[in-house]
This record gives sequence, structure tokens and C-alpha cells, in this order.
Amino acid sequence: MNKTNLDRLFNPKRIAMIGASANFGKWGNIILLNILKGGFKGEIIPVNPKEKSIFGHDCYTSVGDIPGEIDMAVITTPSKFVLSLMDDLGAKKIPFAIVVTANFSEAGEKGKEEEIKLVERAKKNGIRLVGPNTMGIFSSESCLHALMPMLMPLHGSVSMFSQSGNVGVQMMDYGQNENVGFAKFVSSGNEGDLTCNDYLDYFAQDKNTKVILGYIEGIEEGNRFLSSAKTASKNKPIIVMKGGRTQTGSKAAASHTGSMAGSFKINQAVFRQAGIVEAHTSLEMIDCAKAFSHYPIPKGNRVGIVTRGGGWGVLTADSCEEAGLEIPQLPEKIIKEIDKLLPDYWNRGNPVDMVATISHDPMPEIIRLLAEWDGVDSIIALGAGFRAFKIQQSTTTQFTKELKESLEFLSDIKKEAAEKPDPVLQFMSDLVKEIKKPIFSVSIGSDYAHKHIFEKYEIVSYPTPERAVRVLKHMCEYGQYLAAL
Amino acid sequence: MNKTNLDRLFNPKRIAMIGASANFGKWGNIILLNILKGGFKGEIIPVNPKEKSIFGHDCYTSVGDIPGEIDMAVITTPSKFVLSLMDDLGAKKIPFAIVVTANFSEAGEKGKEEEIKLVERAKKNGIRLVGPNTMGIFSSESCLHALMPMLMPLHGSVSMFSQSGNVGVQMMDYGQNENVGFAKFVSSGNEGDLTCNDYLDYFAQDKNTKVILGYIEGIEEGNRFLSSAKTASKNKPIIVMKGGRTQTGSKAAASHTGSMAGSFKINQAVFRQAGIVEAHTSLEMIDCAKAFSHYPIPKGNRVGIVTRGGGWGVLTADSCEEAGLEIPQLPEKIIKEIDKLLPDYWNRGNPVDMVATISHDPMPEIIRLLAEWDGVDSIIALGAGFRAFKIQQSTTTQFTKELKESLEFLSDIKKEAAEKPDPVLQFMSDLVKEIKKPIFSVSIGSDYAHKHIFEKYEIVSYPTPERAVRVLKHMCEYGQYLAAL
Repeated sequence: MNKTNLDRLFNPKRIAMIGASANFGKWGNIILLNILKGGFKGEIIPVNPKEKSIFGHDCYTSVGDIPGEIDMAVITTPSKFVLSLMDDLGAKKIPFAIVVTANFSEAGEKGKEEEIKLVERAKKNGIRLVGPNTMGIFSSESCLHALMPMLMPLHGSVSMFSQSGNVGVQMMDYGQNENVGFAKFVSSGNEGDLTCNDYLDYFAQDKNTKVILGYIEGIEEGNRFLSSAKTASKNKPIIVMKGGRTQTGSKAAASHTGSMAGSFKINQAVFRQAGIVEAHTSLEMIDCAKAFSHYPIPKGNRVGIVTRGGGWGVLTADSCEEAGLEIPQLPEKIIKEIDKLLPDYWNRGNPVDMVATISHDPMPEIIRLLAEWDGVDSIIALGAGFRAFKIQQSTTTQFTKELKESLEFLSDIKKEAAEKPDPVLQFMSDLVKEIKKPIFSVSIGSDYAHKHIFEKYEIVSYPTPERAVRVLKHMCEYGQYLAAL
Repeated sequence: MNKTNLDRLFNPKRIAMIGASANFGKWGNIILLNILKGGFKGEIIPVNPKEKSIFGHDCYTSVGDIPGEIDMAVITTPSKFVLSLMDDLGAKKIPFAIVVTANFSEAGEKGKEEEIKLVERAKKNGIRLVGPNTMGIFSSESCLHALMPMLMPLHGSVSMFSQSGNVGVQMMDYGQNENVGFAKFVSSGNEGDLTCNDYLDYFAQDKNTKVILGYIEGIEEGNRFLSSAKTASKNKPIIVMKGGRTQTGSKAAASHTGSMAGSFKINQAVFRQAGIVEAHTSLEMIDCAKAFSHYPIPKGNRVGIVTRGGGWGVLTADSCEEAGLEIPQLPEKIIKEIDKLLPDYWNRGNPVDMVATISHDPMPEIIRLLAEWDGVDSIIALGAGFRAFKIQQSTTTQFTKELKESLEFLSDIKKEAAEKPDPVLQFMSDLVKEIKKPIFSVSIGSDYAHKHIFEKYEIVSYPTPERAVRVLKHMCEYGQYLAAL
């Protein structure tokens, strides 16, 4: 099969913005503002016969009037103008057009006919189309935010194709919350021409993409998808969320993108065969994106757990066993080593319970003992990084004064903890690179903590143990798939 | 059975803090600081023979030296002193003691013997014990933060007993993130004397408690628990998370609180029989607490969905069907009404897809049509409250100037949106009170949005549709349980 090179689509030097507008409340205006606000590295050229200049950019009456080569056009005009625009673009030899304009196949029979005509005309003119009915594309390399929603995604190594603009954009929004950055994004719209398969092939060979995400409602060419996904997943994890898993969902999907959702069971079988990670919820998808893009894949499903609280250890062990992960018993050798670090009533098992010791000092050593042990493939550390208590006894005298002072001192401790590098977290971060096993942190604290730990120390961190376990399960399954190839 | 009145434990007028300390790094110091920082409404009296005054509070050599009546003692001394303290407390007629001190039954056979002796001695002296090995208690009424961790939970109507201090405290921490406030909390520790059953009975009749949470590893008196829970759940939802669901988890639980986890299947049967909501993850528990404490229980499992994005509607419909919730078809009458509000290519189904209309204007009317329809029992509104686009066309002229200005204007819009009350959200909030059906908002945006919507408008809001659906499923099941009584 011919893989389409989409470089001029995702990293264009010059874009014609057809239907550009200074009129707020029109999509042509919002997308133009997003592109300008995003600091696009290329040149953006507005086309609108009614305007002379928009935001200081000379406006052209038609694309034919623009001097020089154009790589790509963004179209937001009313649908009735789109068909004839294809001839203008063809004459100008523009290879790609993003058709944001809606009212095509998603809008019933008449729209479907219009879409067929549009695609034929584009083909005749040598133009490849994104959409119609797309929310646009994003590319970090060229700082291109050709998007309907006002969103500036974080830059990173995750690329996504989405058969729903909203779901896709939302993933980039969740990405901002969770510090997951994107390389490329495309809302594939009605897929009149270019389909998920084309984007998948392109992302598979894109050097800036480490992980591929996909939101899929229906796939037209199942065999091509399977083959593309199989090839891609050998080198990059593909994480897919399927919409239209149920009868009600399929029905909604049919009226959404006009896609036939097909049997979910068959879809799942295809996903498994292709080594695709199937995320069941939106949160799971972005949680997976974070870990897969930052951590090595574990070699097996054996987990070592260290916890600052017994109950969290219990819940984590439960989650692991329910997810098919193994919590192996500690060998005598490691028990003896930990005996030197913890009070003599410690539990001598995995999870290693630090039995409410105030100090964090033993934690790095315990993590190292587990990580170096060939009996486990990954580590979950619960409560690491909460170092507000790590105070020298010499400060004691400060507490014998007034209460107010001591409370101020407490604030100072917290401030210091937030500002100074945390030695436990720094240790963990270095250890992942050294030992090449994933070490997850469960921050067990405010939302802020896990974001901070990931942002500052590059330790993949979640606020609850269950979220960490769910991701680890997917990593282990992907690892098994790769090992069996 | 005799229900113990725990008023003097949770709302004491005078507390003796035995083992109080000005020495940072000791639990007696941290708990005392927490109590002082929390603004305890009663009087706190430190007891420590080595100190004269701690943080400006006169320190006593022994409890016997304190003049006047004492309601409760917090004990953080080393374990060897705890037994004889019971006689001192008895002589002083102190009815309750919170034994934070560890090294009892959780620490092996010897500790178990010590615990039996301790409980016997307490009984002889007419003292009821929390713990030993507890992280303490919290009570919003008296602003009492007798807790080991430095945490100031939000005040509210949720009360929790927890067989793990860490898990319980963490729930209050998640509560801060999700704006879920607590009325009372107890870390039940080893439950040498007072058990989960006592706390459950007490919370059941506590007028400040609307929802009861419980983290349970093992229950000693299963029949009493069933009967207490059955009585309580008639008036207040009980949401339980079970630790030790698996073999590995049970084993960890045994060394954590010394509890026998028992068969999880039997536990689940008991939960179902008692109308208990079983949360499977920590996030689910706090999500449930939010909805159950703020919204009416839906009368049935039929859901109306309105969405600003087609894909999110698909995923929400999928989640609902997978959770056993029904998405009924719209009657002609409602379709005709919505025909007046949306472009003519709208999907004419449930979920109602607003087909990317920029304006939010139709949303309140659509929500009202669904909410007033007797064919649904609850509503999920996806994307409500994102009103940054709601701009008068008359502002257009502002955009014909320079780009910089227009970007500033965009910031102003966002600022305005954040500061001015959102009419859609205000409408939804009022409608819940009027129609008495739960209307969930899925904010589909940054973490900030759903917190803000809940805090400012009291609309139960989640960042992903799947979290809303999971909670709704539990509410429906609880409603069915109540209806079948």
C-alpha cells in the first residue's frame, strides 16, 4: 500500500486560510486566532474577498492571487463554496486541505452525496483532504494550532488521531492537567478522503512520535488497519479508545460521524492481534500515554510495592492481583537487608510496609533493594516524596517558644519542601534510568503532588494506586505481546 | 445491643494530651500542633512530666493533677506507659482515650497480649478506647483535628470510619481536591475496644452526618455489622471500600491491622444485603461521597444525555449501557421542541448532540425539556459551563484592529467567563432543586473547571463522563434497594 507523506500537511511552510475572518463567533476567526496565538513558525495567508487585511495580515480575494507556493489550505467557508474551491486549490497545486466546514455526510443523505462529489473533485485536482467536518490539526514541530477550540496543548511525544474532535481535543486538555505533551494531533472528521489508517502510518514513521493514541468509532478498511497497527506497534505503543462499544453507543456514533461501529468483540480481537492497548476510560488513556511515553516496558508482571501506609499497601496488592499482576514474596536476603532499615515489627513481606516511620530515610534504600532484585520487573512506591517531616532534631528549640512562631516554622518547612529538590524523588528518578525498570510513584496527596513529581522529577506519578496499577497492567500486556513476536 | 454515645469523644470540651511534646519529630508534638492549628473550640491540656509549658499551655505532670472534668485523653506515650495510664484516667473518670501509641496487636504475639491487657484495664476503669495504633479523629463541629498527619479537611456532611489511618486520611485529602467536606472521621486502628460497628451506629444517628464512608479490612462481629448497616442505610447511604479482596491483599491486611479479611464474596453479599454501596477504587469512593451528599437519589435508571460534542455523547452512552443504565429514546413531542432550538441536521436522539453550535443558548432549554420529561430520572450534561464563546456580535469591530489587542480581548473574555456567574450553570443548579432529579455536569476541560462548577454552583461535576456514570450507577442501585424495602 502507498503510505501518504503528510509532512506538508503537518509541517507546512505557508498556509492559506480560506474563510478567514475578523468576525468573532465564526470558526474562521477562532482558528486564525489560535494559529496566530500558537506562534506558528510558517506563514499564514488569509483569503476572504470581503476583507483587505485581517490582524495585520494582507487578505487575498482568492487563493489564485497569492504569490508563491502554498503547502496547505484550511477551509472554513460555508459548505456551498467548498466544491468549487477544489478547482482553485488544484490550479494553485496545493496538496492538502483541512475542510473544517460541516454539513456533509454527518448531516444525512444529501450531505453524503455532497461529500462524495467533494472527494471526487479533490482527487481530480490532486488534493488530499482532512475531514470534512474536522476540528483541525496540531503540530508541535511547527507550532501549528489549526484547531477550533482555544487550546494550546503541551508539546511532547504523543501523537493522536481522533474520529471525534471533542474527544481528541479533550485528551490534549487532560494532557495539560497531567503534564502529557503532544507531538501531532488530527481530528479526522468524516474521513471523506484521508482516514485513521493514513494518520496511523504517518505517526508510525514520525521521529517525534513515541506513543500513538487513537479514538475510534468505526474503521472502514479493517485489514489495512490491522496490518498498519501490527507494523507500528512493534516500535511504538498504540493506545486506542473505542466509541460505540454498545448498542446505544453505536447508534449515537452512526449519527455522529456516520460510521458503522461494527461488533465491539471483533474490534477487540483486532486490537489484541495488533498489540494495541485498549483504554476503557478517558482517564486511563491519558494515564497510559504518560507512562508509555516516559518509561521502559517492564520485562514481566512481577511487582514490588513499598508503602508508607499499610492500608494503601493492601489496596495496591488487591488491585495488582485483580489485574493479573504478581506480588512475589521477598527472599530471605532482602528481608535481612530491610531488617537493618525498619523497626523490628515490620511485616517482612511484599508490600513492604514502612510502618508509619516519620523519616523517609529508609525509603530509597528499600526501593533500591527491590529494584535491583531480579524477582520483580517494576516497582510501585506509595507516599514517596512527602518529606515535610524530614527535620533535624536540632531545630527542636524553636518549638519551645510561642505557638505562632512554630506555626510559621511549619509553613517554612512546607515551603522548603516544595522548593528544595526532594532527595527520595531524585533518587528514584536516577534509579529508573540506571536499572531500566519502571518505578511508579503514588503521591497519595493533593492533585498538585503527582503533577509536580512528574514535571520536576520525570517520575510517572498518579494520585491513587488503582490508576498506577491499571497502567502497569497495560504495560505488562504490551511487553508480553512484544516478547511473543 | 447497646449503642455507645460517642459525643464526649468527638465533641469534647476538655482534652488531656498525654505525651504532648514540643519536640518536632514526635507524634505527640504533631498532633498537638494540628489541634492548635485547627482552632479546637474546647480546651487542650498537655500532660508531660518533663515540660512546664508547651506552646503557652500549662503542662501537667499527670492527668490526676488537672483540675476539673476531662472528656477525653489523647495518648502518644511509648507503649510501656499506656497500661498504667488507664488507672490514672479511671481515677479521673475520663470516659474516652485515643491510643495513638502503636506496638500492640499489629506487632505480633507479644503485642497482642499487651493489647488484651490494655483493653481489660481500660474496661475495669470504665474507659472506652479508640485504637490502639490509631491515627486519631476529626470532628468539624468542635474543630477538632486530633490527627497524626498535618491535614485540615474541609468541613461538610460526610463521616468516615477507617481501618487504615492512611487510607482514611487520604480520603479527606482527596476531599480537599474535590470539594468534599467531612463531618467526622475516625481511624479505628487495631479496634482493641471500640470497633467500626460502634462508629457506624454513632454516625447513623449523628445529625451532622449525611453520608457514611468506611474503609474495611475485616469485621469481627459480622451479624452486628449487617444489622447496624441495614438500619443506617435506610436513612443515609453507606459507601464502603474493602481492603483484602484478594489473597495477596488479605495477607497484607493480616500483617497491617491483624484483621482476618474473610472471603470477599461473603463480604460483598453482606454489603448488598445491607444496601451498602461498594466503591472499587479510592477515586470512586470520593466521587460517590460528593454526589450522595449533595443530590437526590434518582427514582430509576433512565438517563437523558445532552452533549456539546458527539464523541463524548457516544462514550457516555457506552458507559451507561455497560453500567446497566438505560438511555431511552426521545418522544416526538420533545424532538419537535428541540427542532426549534438546534440546526436541522441534529441527531434527533438521546444523547442530544448540540452539533458544535458555538452558542450555549439552547443548552438550558434542552436540559429543561429532558428534566421535565417523566421518561428520564437523571441528566448528564457534557460541556456545560464552557461559555468563553458567548460573545455579542457587536464586539466584532474590536477585531479589525491589531492582533495584539484581539488577544488581550480574548483574555478578557476568559476572565469575564471566570468571574461572572455562568447562566447555564446557574440554571442547572436551580433546576436540580426544582425538579429533584440529579443533573450531573461533565466539565470536559481542565481539572479546575469541575471543582469550580461544584464549589460555585453546587452542581455535582466530574472531569470525565465515565466518572459521572460510575457514580450514577451506584445511586440508581441504592435507589432500587430503598424502593424494595
